Order: sequence, then C-alpha cells, then structure tokens
Amino acid sequence: MAAAAAPPPPPTPAPEPALTLSQNTPLGHPIFTRIRLATPSDVPQLHKLIHQMAVFERLTHLFSATESSLSSTLFPSTTPTPQPFHSFTIFILEVSPTPFTDTPNNPFYNPTEKVVNLDLPVEDPERETFRVQNGNDVFIAGFVLFFPNYSTFLGKPGFYVEDLFVRECYRRKGFGKMLLSAVAKQAVKMGYGRVEWVVLDWNINAIKFYEEMGAKILQEWRICRLTGEALEAYGGAE
Amino acid sequence: MAAAAAPPPPPTPAPEPALTLSQNTPLGHPIFTRIRLATPSDVPQLHKLIHQMAVFERLTHLFSATESSLSSTLFPSTTPTPQPFHSFTIFILEVSPTPFTDTPNNPFYNPTEKVVNLDLPVEDPERETFRVQNGNDVFIAGFVLFFPNYSTFLGKPGFYVEDLFVRECYRRKGFGKMLLSAVAKQAVKMGYGRVEWVVLDWNINAIKFYEEMGAKILQEWRICRLTGEALEAYGGAE
Repeated sequence: MAAAAAPPPPPTPAPEPALTLSQNTPLGHPIFTRIRLATPSDVPQLHKLIHQMAVFERLTHLFSATESSLSSTLFPSTTPTPQPFHSFTIFILEVSPTPFTDTPNNPFYNPTEKVVNLDLPVEDPERETFRVQNGNDVFIAGFVLFFPNYSTFLGKPGFYVEDLFVRECYRRKGFGKMLLSAVAKQAVKMGYGRVEWVVLDWNINAIKFYEEMGAKILQEWRICRLTGEALEAYGGAE
Repeated sequence: MAAAAAPPPPPTPAPEPALTLSQNTPLGHPIFTRIRLATPSDVPQLHKLIHQMAVFERLTHLFSATESSLSSTLFPSTTPTPQPFHSFTIFILEVSPTPFTDTPNNPFYNPTEKVVNLDLPVEDPERETFRVQNGNDVFIAGFVLFFPNYSTFLGKPGFYVEDLFVRECYRRKGFGKMLLSAVAKQAVKMGYGRVEWVVLDWNINAIKFYEEMGAKILQEWRICRLTGEALEAYGGAE
C-alpha cells in the first residue's frame, strides 16, 4: 500500500551507522533466546530448577534427587554413551540481553535461536545463580526433559515429555511453548508418531494451553504406579 | 501326614523308572513357562499378538504397525545397537507341555522358568501360528513391552510398560502377573525407582488386579497427546 503522505527526501545521505541492536530486532525490550542440548556442566543448575518445580507443585516431600544422582543417570559414563533423543534428553532454554556470541558445538542438535520482543524488561532475582559459565551474560530460564516412548499400534517411537519448566520471572512470554515446540519439531524430524505428557486434571490453564497447541487430552486413561516398598518386594520374588 | 491305609510293600523292588513328568512336577496338568528377551525372529508373531490386542481393545482403526515397521524400530540395525532395558525391550512368555530342552543364550537376561499346575489342559486353537521355530513344542503365549522412563524428583530411571498381553486361551492363569513381575524384578535389580503403566478408568477388573499387585492408581493425572496432523504441523515451524 502506498504511503498517504511521503516524507521529503533527506537533504544529504546520512553516514552508515554502526550496527546497533535496534536495527536488527523489534522495538521494545528484546530478549535473545536459545534452545540447546544440556551438558554435564548444567547439572547444578538443573538440580535447582527441578527443586523449584517441586516447590511450585508442592511436592518437595517427593523430591530426593541430588546432583550426583542426576549426573550419574542423565549423563552416565557407560560405554556406549547413550545418544541424545535415544535416551533421556534435556533441552536447556538460555536467554541473554545481547546476541549470543558463541555457538555450542553439538553434532546431534543445532541450537535454535530466536529474538523475542517484550513490553517490559525481565527482572531476574536469581540471575547469578542461573548464569551460564563462560557465557557472556547468558542465563538459564528453563528446561524440558524428554525421552523416547513406543506405540505398538503405530509400530514407531514417539517422545514422552517428563518435565517442562520455565523459571517464574520468565513465564507468560511463550517460552514454555518454545520448549515444547522444539520437542515436537524433533519428533517430526525423526519420523516419530507422537509427543505425550501428563497434566493434572484441575490445572485448567495448562489444559487450555496444551489444547491450543493441538494436543488431545485423553480422559479415560489412568496412570498406575508401582514404587517404594511395593516395588522392592518384587526384588526377591520368584 | 501318614497314609490312612498303607498299601502292602511290593514283593520285589521295582526297576528304577525313566524320568517322567509326574515325578518332578505337581499333580494335575503342568505347563512349563519361560520368560525370555524377544529376538528379531519373534517379529511375525509379535505383529500378530499386537493385532490381537487391537481387536480386544476395539482399536483396530488405530492399528497401522507392520512387520517391517516393528522390525526396524524394535530391532534397529543402527550402531551402537540399543541395549535391552536401556531402550524398547520385550519379554516373551513361552509355554510348553514338556520341559524346555534348550537355553536361550542372552548375555543381558537369564530366562526365568516356572512350572504352573493347571486344573485343565489348555486347548490352544492357534498353536501352529504361535509355535516357536526350532522349539520342541514351545509356543508363544504373551508378551510385555517396556522401556526406561525417568523421574526428576527421584533423580533416577524407572520402567514404563506400554503393553502387556496374554493370548485368550492362556488368560486367568497368573501369566499376566508373571510378565509384570518380571519387569518389576528387573527394575529392582537395576536400582530403578518406579514401574508405571496406564489403565482405562472403566476397566475395574484390571484396576483391582493392579492394586492387588501393589500399584497405586493416580486419579488426578491426564495424558496429553500431540499426534497426526497437529504434530506434523510443528515440522516446518520456526
């Protein structure tokens, strides 16, 4: 559409300005985001994130993970080392007020970057706790942990999302959807048939969010869990 | 307990009889059972079992697995080959009217054998379909498919049981419990924290059976599923 009133041309060409943020990003308060695979050096911060999740869900009495148990089970030193996407896999969401200058070198996943424009800047009270080592003002904002599951009816694998968590000050900015979308995209890339997760039936906001993302909520199925002493009893059984 | 009326002793010692079934097994109709890891040669029969499961659940419209898709996803030829219990894993339940003479040689799982005494012999209308190749009167009666899942709160893996199926003529004999117990026992052996699966909320008999096995039914959680076109849409998403 033609402009209703064209401004007059500038009298002389302005000098080429230096590359500034405002020219390459939307107006407002841009935040640079990146999704990458977790590494063993993320474990201390992952442990803190999982504890925050337990607090949020009021389930700290069920929380017994340690940095050591997370490290040995998520990044085992067994040979062969489990490949990402074929075993327990974690995407880390990093944010930064400035563009990322490094590129994580991982043969299994090319990090995805996106600039998000916020109305207000984020005040992060825990920025030092979640600052990424060797990162130039890079902070961990959330994570998603997932692993393959299998559908015998489809005759193919899928992904099961065990945890999706975004730190409180970064919520309601589309970051949860970014993390879940990254899992869905990876599933499509691998030819997988499903992405599944669970939600509490009273969490209406979450259910609405998931349905808007295209998910179906299966109302008839219930989870059965054998754990603790009831599980241990099978250890010596014939 | 002493016999109420002892028969007179035989006039001469009877010759040592050949080893017969009745001397080494309970009275009645013994059936020899064995749980072993599945191999690629089980795929044709596994495909039939999964189809029978779809018929039983009236979900054949969701059944699209082929022998080829099962084979390439459950027994991939990728390097390194996924290890049993660290990826999709299948226990096969074999039955035989006579003791097993061979021993499947698998470094990851030592088959478990058990003799079960039945009131009546099993009439198996599909015995030729489910006869194990090279087996001496050995038939496949059921299977369980499971794989690792992960609890961040526990900081350790568990097993998720996707399918548990026993062919109709072998039901109500404790075989389902045997298969599920074998998974639970393996979980304990590996130091895993949970065994989980799902059940339809109207399947009262199954829920009762699982509760008797020590499982808790989680009433508040609902499964969310992203599949088909809704999933494919994420393939090209930014």
